[in-house]
Amino acid sequence: MLQHAVDLNCDMGESFGAYRLGRDEEILKYVTSANIACGFHAGDPGTMRKTVALALKHGTEIGAHPGLPDLAGFGRREMQITPQEAYDICVYQIGALWSFVRSEGGKMQHVKPHGALYNMAAKSRELSGAIAEAVYKVDPELILFGLAGSELIQAGKRIGLRTASEVFADRTYQQDGSLTSRRLPDSLITDDEQAVRQVIRMVKESKVLSQQEIDIPIEAQTVCIHGDGSHALEFARDIRESLEKTGISVIAAKAVAR
Amino acid sequence: MLQHAVDLNCDMGESFGAYRLGRDEEILKYVTSANIACGFHAGDPGTMRKTVALALKHGTEIGAHPGLPDLAGFGRREMQITPQEAYDICVYQIGALWSFVRSEGGKMQHVKPHGALYNMAAKSRELSGAIAEAVYKVDPELILFGLAGSELIQAGKRIGLRTASEVFADRTYQQDGSLTSRRLPDSLITDDEQAVRQVIRMVKESKVLSQQEIDIPIEAQTVCIHGDGSHALEFARDIRESLEKTGISVIAAKAVAR
Amino acid sequence: MLQHAVDLNCDMGESFGAYRLGRDEEILKYVTSANIACGFHAGDPGTMRKTVALALKHGTEIGAHPGLPDLAGFGRREMQITPQEAYDICVYQIGALWSFVRSEGGKMQHVKPHGALYNMAAKSRELSGAIAEAVYKVDPELILFGLAGSELIQAGKRIGLRTASEVFADRTYQQDGSLTSRRLPDSLITDDEQAVRQVIRMVKESKVLSQQEIDIPIEAQTVCIHGDGSHALEFARDIRESLEKTGISVIAAKAVAR
Amino acid sequence: MLQHAVDLNCDMGESFGAYRLGRDEEILKYVTSANIACGFHAGDPGTMRKTVALALKHGTEIGAHPGLPDLAGFGRREMQITPQEAYDICVYQIGALWSFVRSEGGKMQHVKPHGALYNMAAKSRELSGAIAEAVYKVDPELILFGLAGSELIQAGKRIGLRTASEVFADRTYQQDGSLTSRRLPDSLITDDEQAVRQVIRMVKESKVLSQQEIDIPIEAQTVCIHGDGSHALEFARDIRESLEKTGISVIAAKAVAR
Repeated sequence: MLQHAVDLNCDMGESFGAYRLGRDEEILKYVTSANIACGFHAGDPGTMRKTVALALKHGTEIGAHPGLPDLAGFGRREMQITPQEAYDICVYQIGALWSFVRSEGGKMQHVKPHGALYNMAAKSRELSGAIAEAVYKVDPELILFGLAGSELIQAGKRIGLRTASEVFADRTYQQDGSLTSRRLPDSLITDDEQAVRQVIRMVKESKVLSQQEIDIPIEAQTVCIHGDGSHALEFARDIRESLEKTGISVIAAKAVAR
Repeated sequence: MLQHAVDLNCDMGESFGAYRLGRDEEILKYVTSANIACGFHAGDPGTMRKTVALALKHGTEIGAHPGLPDLAGFGRREMQITPQEAYDICVYQIGALWSFVRSEGGKMQHVKPHGALYNMAAKSRELSGAIAEAVYKVDPELILFGLAGSELIQAGKRIGLRTASEVFADRTYQQDGSLTSRRLPDSLITDDEQAVRQVIRMVKESKVLSQQEIDIPIEAQTVCIHGDGSHALEFARDIRESLEKTGISVIAAKAVAR
Repeated sequence: MLQHAVDLNCDMGESFGAYRLGRDEEILKYVTSANIACGFHAGDPGTMRKTVALALKHGTEIGAHPGLPDLAGFGRREMQITPQEAYDICVYQIGALWSFVRSEGGKMQHVKPHGALYNMAAKSRELSGAIAEAVYKVDPELILFGLAGSELIQAGKRIGLRTASEVFADRTYQQDGSLTSRRLPDSLITDDEQAVRQVIRMVKESKVLSQQEIDIPIEAQTVCIHGDGSHALEFARDIRESLEKTGISVIAAKAVAR
Repeated sequence: MLQHAVDLNCDMGESFGAYRLGRDEEILKYVTSANIACGFHAGDPGTMRKTVALALKHGTEIGAHPGLPDLAGFGRREMQITPQEAYDICVYQIGALWSFVRSEGGKMQHVKPHGALYNMAAKSRELSGAIAEAVYKVDPELILFGLAGSELIQAGKRIGLRTASEVFADRTYQQDGSLTSRRLPDSLITDDEQAVRQVIRMVKESKVLSQQEIDIPIEAQTVCIHGDGSHALEFARDIRESLEKTGISVIAAKAVAR
């Protein structure tokens, strides 16, 4: 019998100085991979150290979560950076986090670009190539997380990295496999049961029903869980329980990446 | 016959974005260790990559040059950071540079704190302990550079790091082994020949004549060469030639560190 | 009959980008002067605009709250800046906030340095002189807030500014008029009634009982109210009610500054 | 007899901390309006103060030169900011510079957005509207500089600001009045005499020959002079002399803005 399995990942370590964000310690109980901010869009050296230690304590796998150099915009505003600049900021941030992982006695599992960098990479072969090269040259054993079906996943495979195709529980999909823009109505799935059902189908059948009411193929090796919002914790627990109840193993990306 | 040897180090990679600083490529010909800025007091990811590549091309050994988070002040203004904060910013910056060294196919030799962090560490056992611990936990093979006779050198030895005691060609010394404050007259040696003689004596006899006209013992495993100023290049060439002429090997720190 | 009066001030606008801090809208009901962060230690342009608009809506007087350029440290870490640098960062930040006050149709009442800049200024005649000059040259009508009895208040008076001597409800005092260091036990007054009594006595009798059990003279034109902490709102309401009940007018600094 | 007149403007105050850029003092002799960086893409409080004082000493009119919050990219990388964010960063930066102008005893003449903000505004009605509103609400007497024929000039006129249409000596134009993209060949005019002739014709005849060999109408109230590059100073002197020789007054924008 085939055993279905999927990774649950969540952004973490997004506090900065006196500012607190997220409920890292609680959500760590439910996810298998933690994407830790590296100081450009969020996070600071002290927060990185503490978040790495926390993830190691909970046995959650650690990834670097490099973002655009835009703390004021939380890395969510697109910037016209060159592929070379994308490469450079990724090498820098991966190394900065690696240093805390190493000094705390752990090992880094993956890299997942953040926010606008993730979105820009999904659509750009050049940016994706640069990001994948940055990851590969720092450590070819690292797993690259990217939007399922995106340029980033292709760039990772091209250069020889293992990749984890990421899907979203609470977002709807277009017929071409892209996420429905947040500017459009119906971009979000607010009904938790529907969100869980969408994930289960993506994992078990490698399919998702697009907004055009047509099934599209989708790979799902990791599911993005949001760590903020009052509801986040509850949903994280729910989705984990539901996946396991339906026979899907929730397991870190290193066991499911391709 | 005893062969005297000393390392020559210089700060590098201090450009930032559109701003250019230093004549790295030229000075690399004369020094054996390059301290590369890591983005907090100077430097940016692109500059770090280019400087690392340049150093590797010239066969110059590479070190991280972590500084205080103060770009506007070039890391020269003392800040009341805690030992924990010193630890965190060092781990972060060492990792960021390490990442470029690794992706360019090199190996990091050393760590030398920059500016006010260097000066504060020289006098504080707590800060020095934190910095030495950061270096050690990231990689116990790294060599820690610090002011000869300082708390930083002691902290490095205490934790089990190899250290390189640093001396200055163009600064005068006090009877207690400290550098004469820049606020005082006679803190600088402006006569090049005198500067060279001071270095030769420090290397060969482990002694320097203090401002109080009393010889004091000093260890000299590495000499700091300044890379800016119109005169820098000429002085770097002069001191290297003079040292070699007098039978002192100019050789990277890894061969002379204790 | 003599009418006692005092201003209540609170730090505001300390959010930054995606990060939220403080309960500005609620605390604005109880205070008469708002010190608004200007983007160096906290705050950003959007937060400044919104906070200015909020203060104007509530009729609370507005002041600039310039800090050290240290967002990661929230402006609480002392930095060895020169008096010229203190002057420059104050002129810059006062102007930045002034611009929002003007564009929202208001008028700026005062300037209160933040955190480490406030503390450093309290003890340094040079820094205080530079800060007072910055305020005076931007607008000689502005009121300078500073620790009662500090160098900053003296510098303000010397240059011709009106000043508001600030006292703390929840801090204890030393015999020399300074605040008990937070590193010492008994630096904080945790009993609300005692804190209120201390303020009432400072306002009505211009006296405070020092930790040495000796009454010392103190001027109190404005009381610092903390805006964070779960308890802040309740204490702000309590102290305002208590002051008014005992016959002290709670009124903006422009009516009580000297 | 009709007297033709034009303003010459140049970006200034672009140094930052230890980094020096531009030859402000020399170029100030030839231009009539100085656009001073405000700390987001370049410049720092000390540089702003010194540049304002220098401009006042030379009798050159002063303008704020607000940019995107991107020091590493020198404000040249487009960022997807909202109109509200554009408004906020302009209000902030104009005020910061205003503060130095006021404290040095001067008066601000104009505002010219920098780099990517200037280019984005040229094409976007929304961004231009937000920037024009920022300028107007801080001070309706300020003159708004923008690309001749751009959305920014129109937005300025719409809200009631005086505007100065800017032309470039060393750039070629397209038939639709836009500048030829720097990515294309022939975007730059490298022959100085040709550049000067182009400016003279734009000022006297309000026409420029586009790359399509068709004359297009253009308004020219101010000419952008570049302050960096070894050649900058010489060209600034040349163009000023040539304009005056041909009977065009070189005079500050406040006398020529519409």
